[in-house]
Amino acid sequence: MKAEILAEESAVEVAAYMQKLGQQAREASRVLARATTNSKNTALLAIAKAIRSQAEILKAANQLDLQAGKTKGLDAAMLDRLTLTDSRIESMAEGLEQVAALADPIGEISDMRYRPSGIQLGQMRVPLGVIGIIYESRPNVTADAAGLCLKSGNATILRGGSEAIHSNQAIAACIHQGLQQAGLPINAVQVVETTDREAVAQLITMPDYVDVIVPRGGKSLIERISKDARVPVIKHLDGICHVYVDVEADLAMAEEIAFNAKCHRYGVCNAMETLLVHADIAKQFLPKMAERFIKEGVELRGCDKTLRILPDINTATEEDWDTEYLAAILSIRVVDNVDAAMLHIHKHSSAHTETIVTQNYDTARRFLQEVDSSSVLVNASTRFADGFEYGLGAEIGISTDKLHARGPVGLNGLTSQKWIVFGSGQIRK
Amino acid sequence: MKAEILAEESAVEVAAYMQKLGQQAREASRVLARATTNSKNTALLAIAKAIRSQAEILKAANQLDLQAGKTKGLDAAMLDRLTLTDSRIESMAEGLEQVAALADPIGEISDMRYRPSGIQLGQMRVPLGVIGIIYESRPNVTADAAGLCLKSGNATILRGGSEAIHSNQAIAACIHQGLQQAGLPINAVQVVETTDREAVAQLITMPDYVDVIVPRGGKSLIERISKDARVPVIKHLDGICHVYVDVEADLAMAEEIAFNAKCHRYGVCNAMETLLVHADIAKQFLPKMAERFIKEGVELRGCDKTLRILPDINTATEEDWDTEYLAAILSIRVVDNVDAAMLHIHKHSSAHTETIVTQNYDTARRFLQEVDSSSVLVNASTRFADGFEYGLGAEIGISTDKLHARGPVGLNGLTSQKWIVFGSGQIRK
Repeated sequence: MKAEILAEESAVEVAAYMQKLGQQAREASRVLARATTNSKNTALLAIAKAIRSQAEILKAANQLDLQAGKTKGLDAAMLDRLTLTDSRIESMAEGLEQVAALADPIGEISDMRYRPSGIQLGQMRVPLGVIGIIYESRPNVTADAAGLCLKSGNATILRGGSEAIHSNQAIAACIHQGLQQAGLPINAVQVVETTDREAVAQLITMPDYVDVIVPRGGKSLIERISKDARVPVIKHLDGICHVYVDVEADLAMAEEIAFNAKCHRYGVCNAMETLLVHADIAKQFLPKMAERFIKEGVELRGCDKTLRILPDINTATEEDWDTEYLAAILSIRVVDNVDAAMLHIHKHSSAHTETIVTQNYDTARRFLQEVDSSSVLVNASTRFADGFEYGLGAEIGISTDKLHARGPVGLNGLTSQKWIVFGSGQIRK
Repeated sequence: MKAEILAEESAVEVAAYMQKLGQQAREASRVLARATTNSKNTALLAIAKAIRSQAEILKAANQLDLQAGKTKGLDAAMLDRLTLTDSRIESMAEGLEQVAALADPIGEISDMRYRPSGIQLGQMRVPLGVIGIIYESRPNVTADAAGLCLKSGNATILRGGSEAIHSNQAIAACIHQGLQQAGLPINAVQVVETTDREAVAQLITMPDYVDVIVPRGGKSLIERISKDARVPVIKHLDGICHVYVDVEADLAMAEEIAFNAKCHRYGVCNAMETLLVHADIAKQFLPKMAERFIKEGVELRGCDKTLRILPDINTATEEDWDTEYLAAILSIRVVDNVDAAMLHIHKHSSAHTETIVTQNYDTARRFLQEVDSSSVLVNASTRFADGFEYGLGAEIGISTDKLHARGPVGLNGLTSQKWIVFGSGQIRK
């Protein structure tokens, strides 16, 4: 009973604390929205400099987190993600310098035209306002996300994993130094200082103070947040990506693309999880392709028709078609034509990224037009679907939503466009 | 007990029915996404023709709704909204012809450019997929919404008010005729045939089958739907719009704009609800302005400073600043400068539409840049903030959200942009 009362009191306190952060962020967002490009870039470069010069302080803070993590029994992979090495610290600083070098999206005016009424109408790109970022163990997200939000004129509230709290606070100190040097409010970037879980519950239910939430982490975290949020969430769910090798594919090209899409890196969202092969070239294509995958250590799982060509591989179940392996496993399905390939994709894809390999003009056009995924490629590896390769400079995530930002989300995804009108006294008749 | 079991059985039946509609809509959406501009326009014109030729059938069905409405005791305003007159039927047909005349947004490819890797990257405009529309008594929404969704390549599930069920079904019959004549699937536009409330609960929680919900109706309907929805909602909440008359305004222009913004129509979302006046010109501006409003029958409510100039008007309370009157009532506040005006707007505006009247270049620029509303105007009436005046041809609503569509939502707001890549065998190095 007493514990319950204490918990309730603590929840009230956390709520008040988060409300305060929210109010401060909203106030800072008004200043940031009108900040000059120069002052935002000055802040980004000053933060990079502070991070470099305070590398030893960052590593000392990180040691506290690592020791606590070891005591708590975190696994090796988690401890690795948590560790701030010299090269990771240098990467954070370089990332901020790269964001400073990007064009400022804010204030861009497009499509100005006169209307018959005499008003001149256009759209102006503006910040979203306040962005809440919820992430897990990697402390470098603190600097990366803060940099993108700052450049796009948004205030940020960062809620990292409790296991990285000391590292995140040390990075936040560098960020605040840089903001101060540029004459910007330090509340433009706030790191949540409590590790209480109630803080997340509050952050995602303050529509007055937070305009959008970007969760970065596993699918279960993102689904949980989306379910409970009362503000919009830019979601990055799973990447079940497909390569379809058409009957009119250049088979040598198809082999390179499929191999790259699967084996360049296994644990990434734009890796291929299912290979679809046209029935008429399957016998010619699959044996050599399979040999190369098996040599690389990839476990293959095939449909009935695939097994007739590759009798030694495992059988793919219905579950396989819906699985994001993020591992050296590939499911293979032989399909009758491009329609069957697209039907499979519409049924099983997570609408992230799909590639067709073909030399046929009509087939390529149909695939481009009809496949409803955030990236659709012809004759190129699925691995290109990322912010850096697309020239966005950096990305805050890859959105699997259809509304607002779709696919890699860079600076523009953190902005909105409002309508602006220049008149000279016009009234509605 | 028995009633509860019956209700439960009915809920299960309604759920199954809505799932079926959803599946059918998803299938139809695949066909619509690849439909040619010509076939979509053919359907729109055929629907317009069917509506005209079946005017008598529509009016007969409407009579059933009107009689039931009278028996149920609906008020006069509601019965008026429900009534299909000859001119309203003609308006529906004309609206569809206007949508047919608009450019097809689907397939538009923008910003194609080569990346250093050799891939050619761009964005293609595509339909959202399936759009659920929830609306109240006006049966004309059935034709208007179906037309916009059809042109933008989306399948639609329409859930009108139960009081308009016969009218909506008769309009749906015209729509289906038109779709059939154009060779498009009739499930591209489906009208929910049950008046059970459970149908709405289902429609807004089927993310597999519905991509976005557009509620059209009062604020309470929209808030309720947004709260319970598990799919994105394009929201149109209230319009608490402001006109700020700056110290450097052309006062004759300011008077015309303020009068038009308030009195052109009272019951619309882009009407002015609060007039903000710079202190240094208030004594000069307000007496004549007030006289004109009072002559027009507008009730004025002022702040303390306003009351010193206009001692005979009512006092505005804090609640007034947050009220969308939609009536012949106007609140007036005297402010010290543009900063105080913007502070008031940020605190009390619904972020719909705000106007500044000024001849000062810097003040105009600051207002345009810093006011965070979906439409920001200089020297023009707030009444221009609408899809027709902006040249969108028609609008499905005015979004007060910042993400995705902001302000008047036309065809483009019902679309998404996916990334497309043309390669020639590129792989990630």
